[in-house]
Amino acid sequence: MASPVLPSSGALSPLGLDSVRLTPGFWGDRVALNREVIIAHCQEWMERAGWIGNFRRLGGDPARRDPVLRQGREFSDSEIYKLLEGMAWAGHPALPELAATVARAQEEDGYLNTRWYGDRYTDFEWGHELYCYGHLIQAGVARLRTHGEDELTGVVRRAADHICRRFMDTSETCGHPVVEMALVELYRATGAERYLEMARRFVERRGLPALDDIEFGRAYFQDDLPVRRARVFRGHAVRAVYLASGAVDVAVETGDAELLSAIEAQWERTVARRVHLTGGMGSRHSDEAFGDDFELPPDRAYSETCAGIGSIMLAHRLLLATGDVRYADLAERTMFNVLATSPALEGRSFFYANPLHVRVPAAPPEGMNPAAEGGLRSPWFTVSCCPNNIARTYASLAAYVATSDASGVQIHHHTPAEIHHEGLVLRVETGYPWSGEVTVRVVRGGSGRISLRVPPWASGARISHGGTTRPVPAGYAVAEGRWRPGDEIRLHLPMTPRWTYPDRRVDAVRGCAAVERGPLVYCAESVKDEPPLALVEARVSPPVEHLVDGVVELDVEAVLVSPGADAWPYASSPRTGGPARAEDAATPPAPPAPGNADTPGPAGKADTPEPAGKAGTPEEPVPVPSGEPLRLVPYHRWGNQGPATMRVWLPTAG
Amino acid sequence: MASPVLPSSGALSPLGLDSVRLTPGFWGDRVALNREVIIAHCQEWMERAGWIGNFRRLGGDPARRDPVLRQGREFSDSEIYKLLEGMAWAGHPALPELAATVARAQEEDGYLNTRWYGDRYTDFEWGHELYCYGHLIQAGVARLRTHGEDELTGVVRRAADHICRRFMDTSETCGHPVVEMALVELYRATGAERYLEMARRFVERRGLPALDDIEFGRAYFQDDLPVRRARVFRGHAVRAVYLASGAVDVAVETGDAELLSAIEAQWERTVARRVHLTGGMGSRHSDEAFGDDFELPPDRAYSETCAGIGSIMLAHRLLLATGDVRYADLAERTMFNVLATSPALEGRSFFYANPLHVRVPAAPPEGMNPAAEGGLRSPWFTVSCCPNNIARTYASLAAYVATSDASGVQIHHHTPAEIHHEGLVLRVETGYPWSGEVTVRVVRGGSGRISLRVPPWASGARISHGGTTRPVPAGYAVAEGRWRPGDEIRLHLPMTPRWTYPDRRVDAVRGCAAVERGPLVYCAESVKDEPPLALVEARVSPPVEHLVDGVVELDVEAVLVSPGADAWPYASSPRTGGPARAEDAATPPAPPAPGNADTPGPAGKADTPEPAGKAGTPEEPVPVPSGEPLRLVPYHRWGNQGPATMRVWLPTAG
Repeated sequence: MASPVLPSSGALSPLGLDSVRLTPGFWGDRVALNREVIIAHCQEWMERAGWIGNFRRLGGDPARRDPVLRQGREFSDSEIYKLLEGMAWAGHPALPELAATVARAQEEDGYLNTRWYGDRYTDFEWGHELYCYGHLIQAGVARLRTHGEDELTGVVRRAADHICRRFMDTSETCGHPVVEMALVELYRATGAERYLEMARRFVERRGLPALDDIEFGRAYFQDDLPVRRARVFRGHAVRAVYLASGAVDVAVETGDAELLSAIEAQWERTVARRVHLTGGMGSRHSDEAFGDDFELPPDRAYSETCAGIGSIMLAHRLLLATGDVRYADLAERTMFNVLATSPALEGRSFFYANPLHVRVPAAPPEGMNPAAEGGLRSPWFTVSCCPNNIARTYASLAAYVATSDASGVQIHHHTPAEIHHEGLVLRVETGYPWSGEVTVRVVRGGSGRISLRVPPWASGARISHGGTTRPVPAGYAVAEGRWRPGDEIRLHLPMTPRWTYPDRRVDAVRGCAAVERGPLVYCAESVKDEPPLALVEARVSPPVEHLVDGVVELDVEAVLVSPGADAWPYASSPRTGGPARAEDAATPPAPPAPGNADTPGPAGKADTPEPAGKAGTPEEPVPVPSGEPLRLVPYHRWGNQGPATMRVWLPTAG
Repeated sequence: MASPVLPSSGALSPLGLDSVRLTPGFWGDRVALNREVIIAHCQEWMERAGWIGNFRRLGGDPARRDPVLRQGREFSDSEIYKLLEGMAWAGHPALPELAATVARAQEEDGYLNTRWYGDRYTDFEWGHELYCYGHLIQAGVARLRTHGEDELTGVVRRAADHICRRFMDTSETCGHPVVEMALVELYRATGAERYLEMARRFVERRGLPALDDIEFGRAYFQDDLPVRRARVFRGHAVRAVYLASGAVDVAVETGDAELLSAIEAQWERTVARRVHLTGGMGSRHSDEAFGDDFELPPDRAYSETCAGIGSIMLAHRLLLATGDVRYADLAERTMFNVLATSPALEGRSFFYANPLHVRVPAAPPEGMNPAAEGGLRSPWFTVSCCPNNIARTYASLAAYVATSDASGVQIHHHTPAEIHHEGLVLRVETGYPWSGEVTVRVVRGGSGRISLRVPPWASGARISHGGTTRPVPAGYAVAEGRWRPGDEIRLHLPMTPRWTYPDRRVDAVRGCAAVERGPLVYCAESVKDEPPLALVEARVSPPVEHLVDGVVELDVEAVLVSPGADAWPYASSPRTGGPARAEDAATPPAPPAPGNADTPGPAGKADTPEPAGKAGTPEEPVPVPSGEPLRLVPYHRWGNQGPATMRVWLPTAG
């Protein structure tokens, strides 16, 4: 079956790309954009950057192995492999030629890496050789399941056998997990048990420890503790969720219930304390890592696109293993607010980090962005893991939508699609997430239970079929019956916009609230920062919906407050909120100490506003009347109108 | 005169170590600790780390120049030079031998660097060669002014002349400023104008640009704009304030009023938007840099010790140039809350970063800390700029206390000291900062105005002398007269504790307030996080003073609130504040969406608290009655009682 994850056991079985076809709609449109634009964009940039050329240079002729000529970071091979995986799922015609380029660089014994030939396996902390193999193997699995054996799958089998020979009886592992889940899937695809055993050993070795210490500490690559002894995800976020995904795969195939429940507990604790409202993971730029519990800054949120993708991969595995709807709930949150956010609407630029607050309207550097940051999306990055990860994930997205078990079919993600299962053919019709009406129309009849996920926010949901309507709680709405062509199941999910408040321990957004509607997180976007978002305070009143070009935007009531004009941003009395008025600029702001507003020193500057010309945020109150509507847009759509400021968490007035 | 900064012109002239002697008191005790403990601690660690050995290995014998044997980072030479400067100011007996070790490694043409011999000047972005010379020259200037010519000053002159020959007519500069201010000071100490001209050219070259672009962008080393065109400090904080210090020195010696006012404007804007309450600078760990305006997170505050020291050096230069008291005000804030915070009370461990909020009680890694972080102070760091910077700054601290001009003497920092100026001898007696009473006793008579700084927070200050008492505003309290032995000037600075609130644009501490008393910022420190600071809310009522072993501690009223037990830290209603009660744990917390607290999904977990054993912060309300006093300690004293949590900014109740 054409699915990236095919466990041999578990509560639910995935329905693959051959059973689920996405039709035009929120996700179907993005999958089409991926096939038509994003995949080609990625290939073009990797040709331009010379990362594909690295393979050509190695092809056959050892004399051409010149490290000076090699382009890109030590892990750039993995980017080509991720694109190959995307091409495989998409049935893209460019795959065979790109695969042949890769194949010619493989050494006789199966070793394949354009960076480390000669001094292979000399740096497990940063070398990324097994990481690159992991992505190569995932590409091969995709090819096996969509096409069958060919040159690419031969390369993959030789590489995987090389890994088993080289590492089966050592204590070594890679600084960046991914080979674990890749090897389990290759086992699932080929039945060769050595791949499962190799994956199991890689999972068990980590944390003994297996790697040297580094500046960030061993927690950076989850080598601080054996995976089954950890209590929370920590360190580099992508590494953490990739490792957890591999551990779930190993647990499922080996029947290791202890390992599975360890990962479930880590997921539960992480979701309770270390996840942004968008589902994004990662709070620190310095090591692309989870922060401490409740360290969730909106402005410096890292929330790497790849961490979001890894979280979706992990949640999908846990859903299949347990059938617990909470995993599908987090997957949906992350799909709509991270996965859909990274690519620009035109598919040619991407967010690497996905912060929830941007203070300065800025364009990223021209061309290849050397950093993960930049106020807007970039066409490519020096470390460009995210665009290719989007490409392979969108290309396989249909496989995440629905599952089956002995009782019937479960639809976890509501988007227009055609679903085939044991003769039953269903057509899902919906304007979700803009509309909460989901219709499942029976095209070819059959029997079995049809379950539709009801998200936790959908209070008052109803299901109608066979002439009856009943309320359904969050979880799954179940329709039983013998289905005839033309039968309809209608799910109604109330989409009332809602204000959401942070746990008081999330210090970074104290005194703020955010607006959500359905699965979407909303944000205020201010092009060129007009009005200045630093001075906006929202009133918590019911948001007003506006349908703009098929997109639901929301107005909330907001006041623009006076910035004051301190020379020192700390004062002996809190600012009174309230609207900006011309007088406000003239009245001296609170002094930095009681009664000294008129004295020299920083305090003395208090009544001397800086020249407006010098200001990064305006020093004069902006003439916007109080109680004006503030337009909120879906977070995933921000940043498509040029440099802008943005904030998800809005300070609340009064 | 024995002072690190001796401008040839300016509003005020420094009084050096030969004119100001610190006696037992807040700063005098620390200067003694430095002389007796810190300097030796630094030398021991640099011997143990092999950084001093790098010079021995080079000494004389080129055959021993083995890069493999070299220890430490590429800039480790500068650490030995900073220690030499500290030894020079302190008149430390270990200087000659250490200087001889350095001298033997110098090449014939004056080049001196243990890392780059062979491939000298091949990496200006990261090589730090001119940075190392800068610290070497500062050590030589200290030796010239405290001792006179010797082997060390000869080394310095040869190195400085080498720099002038090599760089006078190129467009090159160093990725890390410091050589600029060093060369100006060497000009001031020797009168050789080539050093001033070389410094001027280094200042003017930067930002043309003079360096290659890097991942962090050229703003990281202030090469994005010519220094006189910049509007705010940005990029790496230490680099920014070192460059600004050199620019002020060049401006003063060349009479460049435009350059001086450019730095003043940058300082003013930075202080208004980019400085932590402690005076600390730097908001980002990834590039040790300033953040955007108002990006001032207390938990991830970087506030590097060296940036605080650089800010004091810059403020001192601006004070001497302009006589504007606001520079002395910020210097004092930074001295008491950054400079005094870094070293442990026993002087054998140091903070590198000085965050304002620590959530997890933790000890740093054993031995040499590879990171700048760690919940407590570390004895040494892989990058160990801070301890040696403390050593040289404490050793010269007396030179920052007082100045003179034609009218008389200005005392900027109140600490027990004996001050000599043109025959006049003054003894300053005070328990400051614990007490606000400062007595200046005339030991040897003379004439002239005696000015005492009155900080901006000192509302209601009074000065008494000659039998009269009068109120004085912030700025300088001036006493005129012909002084006879036994005369007294008494300054009274009210030390009432005060609550301080952030500008509303400082998002990270919205809804919080901090307590200050006199020049000291206070914090709540909770050893082993008992009580849990994440659950404390303070009531804004007058703090109650307690004198504990000579230290003023403060009690504020606080309530301990219930953590609730969400599976998802975002909910459809704000938490009501109020005290923790046993019931609170049992009642289900707010659901993540209206009315779904009892449904599956993350929401479904809401009424299932995690086992307390798993909790990083307690899940059960802690049995502390409401309105209990919460003890606050001076921020500079936190972290001396083992692993603890700490917060300067306290959420306010109700």
